[in-house]
Amino acid sequence: MTSKTVAQLLKADFKSQDIDIKGWVRTFRANRFIALNDGSSLQNIQCVVDFENTDEKTLKRITTGAAVHIKGELIESQGKGQSVEIKVNKIIILGDSDPETYPIQPKKHSFEFLRENAHLRTRTNTFSAVMRLRSTLSFAIHKYFNDNGFYYMHTPIITGSDAEGAGEMFRVTGLDPKNPPLTETGAVNYKEDFFGKETNLTVSGQLEAESYAMSLGKVYTFGPTFRAENSNTSRHLAEFWMIEPEVAFMDLAGNMDLAEDFLKSVLSYILEHNREDLEFLEQRLLDEEKTKPQAERSEMSLIDKLKFVVDNNFKRVSYTEAIDILKNSKPNKKKQFNYIIEEWGADLQSEHERFLVEKHFKCPVILFDYPANIKAFYMRLNEDGKTVRAMDILFPGIGEMVGGSQREERLEVLKEKMKALEIDEEELWWYLDLRKYGTAVHSGFGLGFERLVMFVTGMGNIRDVIPFPRTPHNADF
Amino acid sequence: MTSKTVAQLLKADFKSQDIDIKGWVRTFRANRFIALNDGSSLQNIQCVVDFENTDEKTLKRITTGAAVHIKGELIESQGKGQSVEIKVNKIIILGDSDPETYPIQPKKHSFEFLRENAHLRTRTNTFSAVMRLRSTLSFAIHKYFNDNGFYYMHTPIITGSDAEGAGEMFRVTGLDPKNPPLTETGAVNYKEDFFGKETNLTVSGQLEAESYAMSLGKVYTFGPTFRAENSNTSRHLAEFWMIEPEVAFMDLAGNMDLAEDFLKSVLSYILEHNREDLEFLEQRLLDEEKTKPQAERSEMSLIDKLKFVVDNNFKRVSYTEAIDILKNSKPNKKKQFNYIIEEWGADLQSEHERFLVEKHFKCPVILFDYPANIKAFYMRLNEDGKTVRAMDILFPGIGEMVGGSQREERLEVLKEKMKALEIDEEELWWYLDLRKYGTAVHSGFGLGFERLVMFVTGMGNIRDVIPFPRTPHNADF
Repeated sequence: MTSKTVAQLLKADFKSQDIDIKGWVRTFRANRFIALNDGSSLQNIQCVVDFENTDEKTLKRITTGAAVHIKGELIESQGKGQSVEIKVNKIIILGDSDPETYPIQPKKHSFEFLRENAHLRTRTNTFSAVMRLRSTLSFAIHKYFNDNGFYYMHTPIITGSDAEGAGEMFRVTGLDPKNPPLTETGAVNYKEDFFGKETNLTVSGQLEAESYAMSLGKVYTFGPTFRAENSNTSRHLAEFWMIEPEVAFMDLAGNMDLAEDFLKSVLSYILEHNREDLEFLEQRLLDEEKTKPQAERSEMSLIDKLKFVVDNNFKRVSYTEAIDILKNSKPNKKKQFNYIIEEWGADLQSEHERFLVEKHFKCPVILFDYPANIKAFYMRLNEDGKTVRAMDILFPGIGEMVGGSQREERLEVLKEKMKALEIDEEELWWYLDLRKYGTAVHSGFGLGFERLVMFVTGMGNIRDVIPFPRTPHNADF
Repeated sequence: MTSKTVAQLLKADFKSQDIDIKGWVRTFRANRFIALNDGSSLQNIQCVVDFENTDEKTLKRITTGAAVHIKGELIESQGKGQSVEIKVNKIIILGDSDPETYPIQPKKHSFEFLRENAHLRTRTNTFSAVMRLRSTLSFAIHKYFNDNGFYYMHTPIITGSDAEGAGEMFRVTGLDPKNPPLTETGAVNYKEDFFGKETNLTVSGQLEAESYAMSLGKVYTFGPTFRAENSNTSRHLAEFWMIEPEVAFMDLAGNMDLAEDFLKSVLSYILEHNREDLEFLEQRLLDEEKTKPQAERSEMSLIDKLKFVVDNNFKRVSYTEAIDILKNSKPNKKKQFNYIIEEWGADLQSEHERFLVEKHFKCPVILFDYPANIKAFYMRLNEDGKTVRAMDILFPGIGEMVGGSQREERLEVLKEKMKALEIDEEELWWYLDLRKYGTAVHSGFGLGFERLVMFVTGMGNIRDVIPFPRTPHNADF
């Protein structure tokens, strides 16, 4: 379809042959050396222009960002830093890039500036590396599940249910925004809306995934989810992607095995396939951290952190044990935590999770059997009547990476729980059906994809790991 | 994690060994033979119960839909129709299924009825086969692009732009539905909405994909898209999934090559990996068509139709040639078409597309170079000034499968087109930037995923190829 890519040429072991390549100029120095990139790899290929035999006008148009078509020969490089280079015989300017106005100059730009130019930011090394890694991670995830007999399912984005309660929802509507139709009692009449009822953007595909697990056995979702929460932080997006596997006949222990195997597998895949991008981002992170006080720097480099997860067994610790550890910990006793752990039942904060992973256990940690009243209605109640078979997986630097549970499979127990929380049975009639007809133990978990991309790329702001972030007061592009 | 699956046992060449399996009862006949399914394959495994040594109470609970745990031995089958079966030593009922109320009885249910029970319909052979094929197709698509150097990107679902004009949009809002804040002039004040402006659900990720293609080279999207059109037909969904590759430096001919290679590749993958499900659905379709008058039956079986696409070169025909063929065709002269083709410029209907594919060329057809005024603003204007470099790929039975184009890469031409169509330049400033800085020829196409699943499964209603369909007045589950 296209001529050869930069990635192909850099790997080529042939020399001195005619080649034809198109790409964008990253830099042009000494009226002679073009660093050409086409997105196929982090590395540029050096193209050497014979400036004495190239007309002045063309030379002037070889500027950062310009699209060019180069014909020439692939030869052994004369200079340092690359093994091959292109001796340019002919250069055609496809699209100019005015150096006076082009936003992406060959210098360091702030991430804030690049967010405002999100349509151009993948023309930088950092963002092209991040987005390549994001793509490979996506593929690794699909491959893992496919290789292990899971079926991919697309759960609905528009939902008529607000029962899951994972967070505030966005309304989806076709009604007149100013003068909506009203009922006799003066409420908005959603019967006249497109779907004949009030609808929202989904916060999770889990409940629907359960219905498929209870027939197809092993399924997973990988789709967008939404939160209408006014959180303007470096860790929140209004629109993000989530992965949710769900498996019939699997209990909480099986769920932990699955999640650990899954995470190790996709991280190994990345280590194997994207070494160049990882090394670049590792160096970027090191440089960034040099500007910070020692105490805020990571103890591990980016790649070490990935290996740390791949090579260590995840430590499995009950919530109750974790509370004991935290209560007796130095930062708790010295009141260094922002939230002091005083008793069983407390909800853990990121600072506690990171203490457990980074200081106490020094390995990824799976916390399980949480107090029922801080977890969702669908989680399997333990025999003690006060804890549920929930699990959270905690990672260094980032805290919670995965949240999952064994699901309540007993109809009567589930109904009681819903009653206590005032969740309408009629709303979830179909979810209850799964417990009426052929119910069985089943489990699953959710993984925020952008969290994983942050972990893998070392990027500190979630807005920098998704192409066009949606946050309060921002839906640009 | 779990014990062996039915698929594993059916493929096992070992015999007479202890096994442990969980699944759902499909049927139980003669108080002796359980057909057990766990979703891992279309086929059930036969489990033979020693009813003389099983207590009456347990036997009564072995009903269609019940979840059971079976321990026994895998042995060579004594009966016909299967090579192995399980001699049951122990059966534990995990979850009952009351035969009086269980909706999925072992008989034929109408698709309408099953749509109302979409949470249970994958417990039937037809829908489990459809959804397994849907999953394999998804994977084949990701694999194709990954193998060919494309990057997967997630384009935004919530969009602040309504410029693409592919159809009516759903509004996404957090404003008070009854009393929204108003501006001084009395309009709804979207500045106070979550994103600080009016936002909608996306109709396409193409424009954003273009921005990534113009830096990463080859990208594709695979995500949900939306149409707020009140079309209650068997071919329309309000929420559906779309695949949109976009490639820099690729012209329309390259786009055709890519689309043809892509379609052949994913269909070959399906033929190779899902033979059992395909054969089942082929038989289902044959049975269904027996009830129809001869003239409405397909000329090809399901698998033949897939092979027809894989084995034939797609015929490339210009719109102008196609109009000539249609004008002179029998059904046009005899006024058998609902829309008679009278002159150049007419928009083609499904009946014309199917005539070209099924009667005239007898192979998949790529139509190209359409009149500019029936196509979108971003398509590359030809030198003739009246046609654009658009292409549609037409398939037997289904009509349009793919729509694509080379994009207008010339800033001035694009601006003029937008002006004529009253598309605000400020709205698409970033899209214009792609033509300002390093512009180049680029192309891509869109494929409605559900269309492809319909083609592969032979299902006649689009609501039956997506887990939980969203249509006017329906957002159940």
